[in-house]
Amino acid sequence: MQCDTLWIDARLATMANVGAVAGVGAIDRGMIAATDGRIVFAGPVADAPFFDAANVVKCDGRWITPGLIDCHTHLVHGGDRSAEFELRLAGASYEEIARAGGGIVSTMEATRAAGEDSLVQSALPRLDALIGEGATTVEVKSGYGLTLAHEIKMLRAARQLGSVRPVGIVTTFLGAHALPPEYRDDPDGYITAVCEQMIPAIASAGLADAVDAFCDGIGFTAAQTRRVFEAATAHGLRVKLHAEQLSNLHGAALAAEFGARSADHLEYLDDDGIHAMAAAGTVATLLPGAYYFVRENRLPPITLLRAAGVPIALATDCNPGTSPLTSLLLTMNMAATLFHMTVDECLTGVTRNAATALGLGHEIGTLEPGKSCDLAIWDIERPAELVYRMGFNPLHARIWRGQ
Amino acid sequence: MQCDTLWIDARLATMANVGAVAGVGAIDRGMIAATDGRIVFAGPVADAPFFDAANVVKCDGRWITPGLIDCHTHLVHGGDRSAEFELRLAGASYEEIARAGGGIVSTMEATRAAGEDSLVQSALPRLDALIGEGATTVEVKSGYGLTLAHEIKMLRAARQLGSVRPVGIVTTFLGAHALPPEYRDDPDGYITAVCEQMIPAIASAGLADAVDAFCDGIGFTAAQTRRVFEAATAHGLRVKLHAEQLSNLHGAALAAEFGARSADHLEYLDDDGIHAMAAAGTVATLLPGAYYFVRENRLPPITLLRAAGVPIALATDCNPGTSPLTSLLLTMNMAATLFHMTVDECLTGVTRNAATALGLGHEIGTLEPGKSCDLAIWDIERPAELVYRMGFNPLHARIWRGQ
Ligand SMILES: [Zn+2]
Ligand SMILES: [Zn+2]
Repeated sequence: MQCDTLWIDARLATMANVGAVAGVGAIDRGMIAATDGRIVFAGPVADAPFFDAANVVKCDGRWITPGLIDCHTHLVHGGDRSAEFELRLAGASYEEIARAGGGIVSTMEATRAAGEDSLVQSALPRLDALIGEGATTVEVKSGYGLTLAHEIKMLRAARQLGSVRPVGIVTTFLGAHALPPEYRDDPDGYITAVCEQMIPAIASAGLADAVDAFCDGIGFTAAQTRRVFEAATAHGLRVKLHAEQLSNLHGAALAAEFGARSADHLEYLDDDGIHAMAAAGTVATLLPGAYYFVRENRLPPITLLRAAGVPIALATDCNPGTSPLTSLLLTMNMAATLFHMTVDECLTGVTRNAATALGLGHEIGTLEPGKSCDLAIWDIERPAELVYRMGFNPLHARIWRGQ
Repeated sequence: MQCDTLWIDARLATMANVGAVAGVGAIDRGMIAATDGRIVFAGPVADAPFFDAANVVKCDGRWITPGLIDCHTHLVHGGDRSAEFELRLAGASYEEIARAGGGIVSTMEATRAAGEDSLVQSALPRLDALIGEGATTVEVKSGYGLTLAHEIKMLRAARQLGSVRPVGIVTTFLGAHALPPEYRDDPDGYITAVCEQMIPAIASAGLADAVDAFCDGIGFTAAQTRRVFEAATAHGLRVKLHAEQLSNLHGAALAAEFGARSADHLEYLDDDGIHAMAAAGTVATLLPGAYYFVRENRLPPITLLRAAGVPIALATDCNPGTSPLTSLLLTMNMAATLFHMTVDECLTGVTRNAATALGLGHEIGTLEPGKSCDLAIWDIERPAELVYRMGFNPLHARIWRGQ
């Protein structure tokens, strides 16, 4: 059989067919073949047919995993919040920080003030940090523009990232992220603008792959979130939700009712929400970087999620206010250390389950024939090293769509 | 005036002369001049004399800090403990882990089995991770050999690191790290070997810059530690101590009594220890990576250390069992997030105070004339960004001894 590229003498963590059996689908003497950017074979060399390959890459026993997937980021934004961080550590009150121009409004203002190209340029170092650790697909949300024009600008900037770097970009419209000052006394009016102006325009421009909202005491109510979900669904867009991060508004159950791809954060998730997610096949996307950075101490209900069979994804939540994190390796270590997740769960969380959370389970996330040939090749002796170390990057090479 | 190299158009965080005033010694329009590897000028360009320089480096407004200093590592060791980490996350008991060959004994065995060159090779990726983030001086301890020959091998490997990479290496003899199996029932007999064989031999070979011990319920008693300190002092070596990590054996006060350069960990430090350290000028070296990785929840007494004027240093404690951490940037973020230290304290902790902890306060740790020209040049807008971000490396360039 002919193929473009062969990776031989590799150990594989396929993340495939692991079913009820714990593990990473490890294959000790493995091989991958790709043609036209897609995997045509991934498995034991002993089971491989003969390939006549244009390129043969010897991996010297290195481990290959699927390219990593960051399924929840706010990568595109203006400014940063290091000044606010510094003030807070020095003991400033929230009032003092607000007076000094801190908080999400400061990110909104910096994002509104930035042009599309400037948003691309400022996001690139963050994207490059993710790519440098083997990420091949990154979700990017809007949500700091909070007007149609600025939200469109953010989504266009996100899409541009995918044309200037070899990486898959998945965009999410998060107009219902925060209440913009223009609507200070009229949250329902803002939700009307989200549902009646923004979602229709963004859907028809094809700028978003999904619609997200922030359902929380400091965000939007369940009723407002329902309106957003109804509008998204009416325009053919799937939904996901920032839910149960700081309080329990039963957002996860609402998300499940709308067949959400994922419900994210979930520190305050309850039993009803877990069962609704399990029944709907909604992925639980956990964000240990935000948990760590805001010094949360209520853990998401990992044991119950596990028992209910809810797939768990992990993501950086990269954002300037609550998780200025650009490392999926560190995200896995935090999930293990802070959430007591196992090595296999962590690796599944940034590959197979992250793909499912993006509705791309058929395309990416495992090493299986037919999927995009997105690979991360590592200088390690065991997959556990990817979770165990902190501030160490053993990436040897990264392949996106076969190259 | 002539000089070798000028760095112009820079912003400086000199970390010098900050005295009682909080801050990083920021200079907005700064310049550094170096000759023969030493700083001859560091300050505002307006105050600079004319320099006739062989090389001029334009920094385009980037920030320059002193090269970072990791003043507490166990960088040289055989093997890793990712298998143990994985087992523990999967719910294995300590007994099961011990049966599976885990624990410090496994690192001792791997270290004893490795040759000197192999120890150098396995430490290099860890050292390179530190260097890649701007570290210019790294302390390395022995303590996994636990016989004279193997401890000497570790110290030689540590010294070799400094000849294969452009970095200052400071070595510490930590024979009293753990009880080797050969002395299972005779800890005092092992301490006798440390004091009467190892310290004299290592001191006369000039292989160690200081002597350290692990004074703890699972390490050595205060009486045993005192014997180690007496032997070190008798052989002209300064001391430091792993103290009050898991219990309070009053090790910090003992260390202070011997004029220790630093007492490290300190989660269980009490008032007497703090005052003894303050009186002796002993640096408190805090290790937030170990605190995080072992899920400690007792904080070191930062507020009291601050009030007593004890200088606080930060280090990675890079080691395979309790802190597989190779990032001083992440160490600073952990100190801010977990220990509530300020940005200025974090930056001082990996520069000026880390230099003091190594007895090198006159040589490194600040940007001042006469000191080694060890610089880290950063793509940032404010020094706080070095503490704020997680898993992001904005290092632009690194200079060690002027080059
Ligand atoms: Zn988010
Ligand atoms: Zn240590």
